Amino acid sequence: MPVNLEAPARGSLSPVAGVDVGTARAGIRKSGRRDVLLLRLAGGSAAAGVFTTNRFCAAPVQVCREHLAASGGAIRALVVNTGCANAGTGARGLADARRSCEEAARLLGCAPEQVLPFSTGVILEPLPMERLLAGIGAATADAGRSDWLDAAESIMTTDTVPKAVSRAIDVGGRRVTITGIAKGAGMIRPNMATMLGVVATDAALPRELLGGWVREIADSSFNRATVDGDTSTNDSFVLVATGASGVAIDGDGAPGAAPLKAAILAIAQQLAQALVRDGEGATKLITIEVERAASQAEAAAVAYAIAHSPLVKTAFFASDPNLGRILAAIGYAGIADLDVDRVELYLDDVHVATRGGRHPDYREEDGQRVMKQAEIRVRVDLGRGASSTTVWTCDLSHDYVSINADYRS
Amino acid sequence: MPVNLEAPARGSLSPVAGVDVGTARAGIRKSGRRDVLLLRLAGGSAAAGVFTTNRFCAAPVQVCREHLAASGGAIRALVVNTGCANAGTGARGLADARRSCEEAARLLGCAPEQVLPFSTGVILEPLPMERLLAGIGAATADAGRSDWLDAAESIMTTDTVPKAVSRAIDVGGRRVTITGIAKGAGMIRPNMATMLGVVATDAALPRELLGGWVREIADSSFNRATVDGDTSTNDSFVLVATGASGVAIDGDGAPGAAPLKAAILAIAQQLAQALVRDGEGATKLITIEVERAASQAEAAAVAYAIAHSPLVKTAFFASDPNLGRILAAIGYAGIADLDVDRVELYLDDVHVATRGGRHPDYREEDGQRVMKQAEIRVRVDLGRGASSTTVWTCDLSHDYVSINADYRS
Repeated sequence: MPVNLEAPARGSLSPVAGVDVGTARAGIRKSGRRDVLLLRLAGGSAAAGVFTTNRFCAAPVQVCREHLAASGGAIRALVVNTGCANAGTGARGLADARRSCEEAARLLGCAPEQVLPFSTGVILEPLPMERLLAGIGAATADAGRSDWLDAAESIMTTDTVPKAVSRAIDVGGRRVTITGIAKGAGMIRPNMATMLGVVATDAALPRELLGGWVREIADSSFNRATVDGDTSTNDSFVLVATGASGVAIDGDGAPGAAPLKAAILAIAQQLAQALVRDGEGATKLITIEVERAASQAEAAAVAYAIAHSPLVKTAFFASDPNLGRILAAIGYAGIADLDVDRVELYLDDVHVATRGGRHPDYREEDGQRVMKQAEIRVRVDLGRGASSTTVWTCDLSHDYVSINADYRS
Repeated sequence: MPVNLEAPARGSLSPVAGVDVGTARAGIRKSGRRDVLLLRLAGGSAAAGVFTTNRFCAAPVQVCREHLAASGGAIRALVVNTGCANAGTGARGLADARRSCEEAARLLGCAPEQVLPFSTGVILEPLPMERLLAGIGAATADAGRSDWLDAAESIMTTDTVPKAVSRAIDVGGRRVTITGIAKGAGMIRPNMATMLGVVATDAALPRELLGGWVREIADSSFNRATVDGDTSTNDSFVLVATGASGVAIDGDGAPGAAPLKAAILAIAQQLAQALVRDGEGATKLITIEVERAASQAEAAAVAYAIAHSPLVKTAFFASDPNLGRILAAIGYAGIADLDVDRVELYLDDVHVATRGGRHPDYREEDGQRVMKQAEIRVRVDLGRGASSTTVWTCDLSHDYVSINADYRS
């Protein structure tokens, strides 16, 4: 059961002018479900992306990087399949990813370099190309008939609900729409972005601006989410600007730039949190705030040490205020000169630890009260400097083990 | 169920001349079980230790360091309690650890600095001093009546079997005995040693030699074991040499030095593996060998990335050869210039991946056969240099979640 997260209602998502959504049921892994997505972009659209830092990055990620460079971001289509990640597939995997782009380009009448391919699912297995190519054909024929909720459904793997968000802003009396989708519930510790997030707007944005925004926004959204600390081979976050609204934004100082960027960030953060709320087996959303660290790297090291500790995560699952486990994680986070006598620990409003020991006013029942909540904030004050960070994670439950022990079956 | 690990048979462990074992049932956390251990050492004994690098190190760890320095290693007793870690307990915790040493010193007629204190159990809770001091009294009275199996039992927390090993070697016609005990099943990623390992011999060893050996041996044994990646606040590994056998070993070149060191290392490795075999919820022992890395640090980073991946660990639990998860872990281990086309992956004798993709001869049923075993070897050849390392870990099962969700109840 995802944590305070419901599927968007049908009709609640706004179409983005210049983007036609097509989906298909290609039977890539399971029959009868939507598993191929094609987003057809109007001429003049621009796209920018950030991708996994995993050295075993998937073939489609390599092809995305090539095609974004070769086309100068003048992308005309995104093609996504679920059920097979096309990672750890060597030369054959690269050829398969290129073949998918060629097929979409042939059908759409653009260059193969104007198509970005994405895959998600099992690693180390080849794509079933016959079924995928048929699916690309069907999704192309469907383009304009499916909606963004269908798109969000078509990219799910172990996700239990589709993830999609729309917003609209007004720029000089004209309406700009932004809609984003994402998927991912396990192998989630994005280290550029997560597989797969797409946010599209009908504003026009020059390529360099788009490239800067996508990195900044990923850093403050998807890159702050972790389910199990496993950085996927396929993480990709793509920002698309079609310009079809007639609103053009030339730079960070242009009218509308700030609210548009804020709206895109809000969508990205909401999607990133949605990944964690729907984390495999998650029963709780944990927000970890580390304050007064000496550097960003130090703040992140402490936040991730807490977020990845199986002992901390199982204590959250059990609603057990066994909070010494959080101190242990802070202690092994790698800060060699950490003065534990300056560390303060709070659970929501409850002051748990002060100066390296239990706070004199701390009562077990206060810790217990917070631990029972579905959403919990852990705040660590390191007392060392001025840097801070926030990381979202979930607990570790029996269902995480069940889901990942059975994933391929 | 621990993996191919049984409790030592009563009578199978050798007493070490110069060490008297005493235990008590002090009701620290649960009533009726042995939970206090006192090892009384003969005059002339020497001890050396290595301790956790966790910055939230427990009060007894701080006192151990102080006492080893103050006494020059001339230790006369080790006092251990289970049920409470005395970590995250601030100034009161330090006072409690010192008070325990004073009580043992008073009873034994030595200086408090000649007593080493150890605690294991829940973090962030104070020691029940009245019960502990009574337990120290009872264990002192018992000294010489309990045996090493009692000792191993008295330090268990979530361990399901006591862990103890004896060996004997012959040095110039004289018998030298070595017996070691250890505990630990969760919060196990020793980063100096594990809480708690003690190996005692009746050979005489000078302090510096002992200090060098304990670090070297910890590095090749306890520091290669990980259950959940959580480095404990209380890790301690202590080597004791009583000299009571009459065999003195002056330096690394002395007769008997090499076989004695090898015997101690073999015991330490056996105990370290025992921790993993009895890892919380473990159903499998996984040995991860990383070869041809550019450095030791790089080899360790890859080995631990695999060992700590919840996805890899759940796949082992399920006997599911979902081996792309291992490639993903190698890929995010932090080697920025890793050439995946040179990476080879083996599961026991099965060649799984070559040059960044599935090996052409790999068959699912071969992977399946190995995954079903209780002991599995993962071998990664990075093709980058001459460094290698070995790490032992276990799988992640439903029982790990159950044990750690219920630990304090």
